[in-house]
Amino acid sequence: MKLPQTVKIVEVGPRDGFQSINKWIPTDLKIEIISGLISANLNRLEVTSFVHPKAIPQMQDAAEVVHRVIDGYKGMELIALVPNYTGAKAAWEAGIKEVTYVISASEKHNIENVRRTKTESFADLRNIKELLPELTIKLDIATAFGCPFLGQVPVEQVLQMMEDSLKLGIDEVCLCDTIGIANPLQTESLLVKVITGYPGAKLSLHFHDTRGMGLANTLVALECGITTFESAIGGLGGCPFAPGAAGNIATEDMVNMLEQMGIDTGIDLPVLLQTAKTVKAKIVQELSGHLVSMC
Amino acid sequence: MKLPQTVKIVEVGPRDGFQSINKWIPTDLKIEIISGLISANLNRLEVTSFVHPKAIPQMQDAAEVVHRVIDGYKGMELIALVPNYTGAKAAWEAGIKEVTYVISASEKHNIENVRRTKTESFADLRNIKELLPELTIKLDIATAFGCPFLGQVPVEQVLQMMEDSLKLGIDEVCLCDTIGIANPLQTESLLVKVITGYPGAKLSLHFHDTRGMGLANTLVALECGITTFESAIGGLGGCPFAPGAAGNIATEDMVNMLEQMGIDTGIDLPVLLQTAKTVKAKIVQELSGHLVSMC
Repeated sequence: MKLPQTVKIVEVGPRDGFQSINKWIPTDLKIEIISGLISANLNRLEVTSFVHPKAIPQMQDAAEVVHRVIDGYKGMELIALVPNYTGAKAAWEAGIKEVTYVISASEKHNIENVRRTKTESFADLRNIKELLPELTIKLDIATAFGCPFLGQVPVEQVLQMMEDSLKLGIDEVCLCDTIGIANPLQTESLLVKVITGYPGAKLSLHFHDTRGMGLANTLVALECGITTFESAIGGLGGCPFAPGAAGNIATEDMVNMLEQMGIDTGIDLPVLLQTAKTVKAKIVQELSGHLVSMC
Repeated sequence: MKLPQTVKIVEVGPRDGFQSINKWIPTDLKIEIISGLISANLNRLEVTSFVHPKAIPQMQDAAEVVHRVIDGYKGMELIALVPNYTGAKAAWEAGIKEVTYVISASEKHNIENVRRTKTESFADLRNIKELLPELTIKLDIATAFGCPFLGQVPVEQVLQMMEDSLKLGIDEVCLCDTIGIANPLQTESLLVKVITGYPGAKLSLHFHDTRGMGLANTLVALECGITTFESAIGGLGGCPFAPGAAGNIATEDMVNMLEQMGIDTGIDLPVLLQTAKTVKAKIVQELSGHLVSMC
């Protein structure tokens, strides 16, 4: 088994996780959790979304969250999700240097998710790139492994999006298993094609644990040479199409597996678990993370 | 990725799963679940334990369960766990042709679990083998990947048990990750040593999903050539040392991953899921299986 020596974990709980929580999480509590994550040495974090408050009321304090984190901690790589140029501009003005922009590999999912065709999304992304040239952009390819509406997503569509992203000068592409349907064989197959086709691309992976295959897929990706993974504290983040389903891979489960295999993540697991316990105590009692369920 | 074409799943829910349920499961309900499992084409099942009713009251109907399954279904491979010769004799007399006998790789765990040293357990096993020569015996090596009392278990102790088992003429050895602590790198390392050292041994694997690594470990074992896995419907079966922890790998999650990767299990997943839903409705509301959590 050929594994990397180090792995970078991108914590997406405060964005992907919190946005799925229906009850309002006070800004102070958001900051408490983010502080806990930073204390565990997570230093690249998707902290919020600059979306319209009517679309996701939970994220209405985006600018305040960003200001408080920037003011409180030096040297953090903070990422914010933005759905369009307006969001990107607001993020930039709040001090954000890197944004996540989401386009689905599945046309149908893109329309359901952001009310645009993929072509329209790419045009918008080009606009952001031109108008905010200093902004670092990570493109999340949603439904890269399967779509809740159409089932299988042809690999060619993912490869075409890689092509388009690189032409556009996108800084990083994150392949997202939005509905947690990827299996290890499929993960290997897709990654081999993407890495062979686009050897210079900066890649990251975002798996959900919906069907229990999250860490198996992570293992395969590690063996393919991937060294950047997104995960969420406690396994936060679900799928609105699958009530009761597990969410993202829990960051603490990910760190545990990696460190047990001798891969350095730089994360302090006991401190991270304390933060997961805080999430459990103050935000969601039923977390899908495995380690936190034993706490 | 080199994967086998077919895999045999051994369902252990009615034994390993039910024994961890504190409230009495009526025999009729046990039979209903076992019937459901058989309907899904599971035909090798660990159906009960012939243990002293004071030790595990849940298993006091062992003989009745066996009789009813034998009477109701032809061609099933039924396995019963036995803790000693008395249990093995009772199982044999009830019509059982194959038993599971458990010895821990960790001496301390063996003493805590069965109140015997490993040497005493092996002597007892030899006694069973001599007095019931026609009985097929599967040896479960518990704590093969780690012990709740001692932590790491030296690989040499597992290899020595392989040696002793084969000398004794044991038919199959199942390496059990009793506390769900195995990581994929460790799984590969142990399996390479066991398979290289004992190429003729019939091996199976029994993983728990305690830390979310169950299917990742399964994947590695598949790549090492293992084609027999134990799992439990719904993810039943916990660890008394870790309240709240996930149990065995859920059979339906295992089948889903295998079939998605093109590996034939022979199992009818929709029928299996119906049975998992019955377990959820009638026995345990909080199951750790992923697919059943979405039902």
